Amino acid sequence: MSDLAPPILASEWLNTPEPLTLEGLCGRVVVIECFQMLCPGCVSHGLPQAQRIAQTFRPQDVAMIGLHCVFEHHAAMTPLSLRAFLHEYRIRFPVAVDMTGERGPLPQTMEAYALEGTPTLLLIDREGRLRARHFGTISDLALGAEIMALVLESTDAG
Amino acid sequence: MSDLAPPILASEWLNTPEPLTLEGLCGRVVVIECFQMLCPGCVSHGLPQAQRIAQTFRPQDVAMIGLHCVFEHHAAMTPLSLRAFLHEYRIRFPVAVDMTGERGPLPQTMEAYALEGTPTLLLIDREGRLRARHFGTISDLALGAEIMALVLESTDAG
Amino acid sequence: MSDLAPPILASEWLNTPEPLTLEGLCGRVVVIECFQMLCPGCVSHGLPQAQRIAQTFRPQDVAMIGLHCVFEHHAAMTPLSLRAFLHEYRIRFPVAVDMTGERGPLPQTMEAYALEGTPTLLLIDREGRLRARHFGTISDLALGAEIMALVLESTDAG
Amino acid sequence: MSDLAPPILASEWLNTPEPLTLEGLCGRVVVIECFQMLCPGCVSHGLPQAQRIAQTFRPQDVAMIGLHCVFEHHAAMTPLSLRAFLHEYRIRFPVAVDMTGERGPLPQTMEAYALEGTPTLLLIDREGRLRARHFGTISDLALGAEIMALVLESTDAG
Repeated sequence: MSDLAPPILASEWLNTPEPLTLEGLCGRVVVIECFQMLCPGCVSHGLPQAQRIAQTFRPQDVAMIGLHCVFEHHAAMTPLSLRAFLHEYRIRFPVAVDMTGERGPLPQTMEAYALEGTPTLLLIDREGRLRARHFGTISDLALGAEIMALVLESTDAG
Repeated sequence: MSDLAPPILASEWLNTPEPLTLEGLCGRVVVIECFQMLCPGCVSHGLPQAQRIAQTFRPQDVAMIGLHCVFEHHAAMTPLSLRAFLHEYRIRFPVAVDMTGERGPLPQTMEAYALEGTPTLLLIDREGRLRARHFGTISDLALGAEIMALVLESTDAG
Repeated sequence: MSDLAPPILASEWLNTPEPLTLEGLCGRVVVIECFQMLCPGCVSHGLPQAQRIAQTFRPQDVAMIGLHCVFEHHAAMTPLSLRAFLHEYRIRFPVAVDMTGERGPLPQTMEAYALEGTPTLLLIDREGRLRARHFGTISDLALGAEIMALVLESTDAG
Repeated sequence: MSDLAPPILASEWLNTPEPLTLEGLCGRVVVIECFQMLCPGCVSHGLPQAQRIAQTFRPQDVAMIGLHCVFEHHAAMTPLSLRAFLHEYRIRFPVAVDMTGERGPLPQTMEAYALEGTPTLLLIDREGRLRARHFGTISDLALGAEIMALVLESTDAG
């Protein structure tokens, strides 16, 4: 099926014993918080909102994932630094480190999704299709409604 | 059908040319913010949240209504004062003044719904049944999801 | 001395066994929060800041006073309503009800001080002179500094 | 004079063309924000407050300085990372990197001041004496007053 969301290209996964894939999460709504640990809007808005999503929805309905897509200050935002950051901010959901790009500063998943910057929130439906891409801030009320609408969609992949 | 939500018993309606009834709103989700104009939690939390609901959902899906259910300081919270309050706080959705009780301080709709205090948020589904009663605070994320779930229910009243 | 702050013309005092006067408070810095109970900026900013002032400075140094200067919705903001409001918002410092004006909507103290609206914060020094008039919002950091500067002025009224 | 504040032992200074010393700042009140770039309380409370201090007081009265005293996750909070952090959070005041300790995880200035953790705010008077050490949060109103009291002290070092 041609409209599946691009795969997550990760050089490393944190907060999970095994790497995750969108295929493996099929059947659940997947919410991806694309962030950089030194991005003020991610720290004050995007990541706290992601933590509320992880606490509000049932894990069997919604998989909350972080994607650390570093496109600036690469040397300051290494996986080692990210690990300390996640520890200090008590972020427990799985976080993928976006694979370094080959031709420029943008990492590979960020480029595949054509992201404009961070924070960006991606919503992927139960059948693996990208349904929304919110760059910047989105209100909790609208987002709660939007996620629930995806949760309640019947899957008829068969 | 025996489990319909009790009717709104109003002595007066503000912000609407005509009185509203739950029957008349049937087919839409109805959200009722039960408040008192001098209740700090209503002013800081409940009413701003109600305004966000009115701005976030489509009117054909969700009817946002206020219910001024005065159970204390009756002389200070008259309809005349309420009118000034709604003007100053820019509250535009329809507001019913709960009918004064006959046997005590509680107004009649508040008593019929057995409310514990203010703020309380009531959710009524498209078929007119009371589905939730939130006393105190509820997060925007959970509430957005809860309202959307009611919006997406098919009505098969027939 | 000609530059003394105009007197507070009050029709009533709440939260104090006896009416207060600026003369009687001479020797202390006097901070006056001019507000209306149905003014949103007063409720969200001005009055909470006034409560913090009352809690932060020593009473022998700083007298915190409210002035209810109603210039609109007069029938909705009566002393009876104000009393309920102060109770619900747990405002404990003395509050004067500004005397109704004789020629227009502005009450008399408000007119004498040429206030532009509410909230306005007035600062009166230990010798009874008006030293600052802040209409709208002022940051806590700047205000804390400004009040302390007045507290530390030596009084040489002699 | 034996009660002078301990010197700042810095391995590096950022946001200033030349290293600073407390002696060199003598005559001004010095406020030192002791922080770690991955400390959530520093990012949400301490550093924004320090920025407000820098904006509120006159530079000739108050010198605002940061002290990056890393006592955990040393490899994640290097000067290179700190530089990116200061850039992203638009922190413009001078920041010293506390000198790595010789016997344990605590850096040297932190140990000399016997700090309990981060954020800690230090206040040094115009004559170079340590006057306050606030670990955790302190309200803007109380802090504004406290700094102003030091600003208004006459210096009679002679």
